[in-house]
Amino acid sequence: KRLRSLGVEMHCRCIQTESQPIGRHIEKVELIPANSHCEQMEIIATLKKNREEVCLDPEAHWVKRVIQKIMSSKRR
Amino acid sequence: KRLRSLGVEMHCRCIQTESQPIGRHIEKVELIPANSHCEQMEIIATLKKNREEVCLDPEAHWVKRVIQKIMSSKRR
Repeated sequence: KRLRSLGVEMHCRCIQTESQPIGRHIEKVELIPANSHCEQMEIIATLKKNREEVCLDPEAHWVKRVIQKIMSSKRR
Repeated sequence: KRLRSLGVEMHCRCIQTESQPIGRHIEKVELIPANSHCEQMEIIATLKKNREEVCLDPEAHWVKRVIQKIMSSKRR
């Protein structure tokens, strides 16, 4: 389990981030700005296959590319 | 109500997008890539105040800036 429970959080949700580039397997992505409970912004991706939630590293180049790709995505 | 119910969606979730720049009031943002059920990507923001969900226009400049700002956010 790489993230904590849902609900009102008083700490960061991510414990560990995904190191593999899993961009193609992502159903949706949640962006949580840095706030008083967590000093870095957090990215939580939901996987298509099993709806598993995994945390992504906001500093990783492949993650930034995935976000850009989603932002400009249109159905082919 | 500017978006449809949660759950497995067979259509776009957003009906209407927020026209006002509400960046400062956003608790988190969900990015949903374009898929077979919805031809454009969708951005759903949850507001800090009341946890209301509002849809944002992915083409709007202020929305792109909000996403960039969140991506680079650190606690001050």
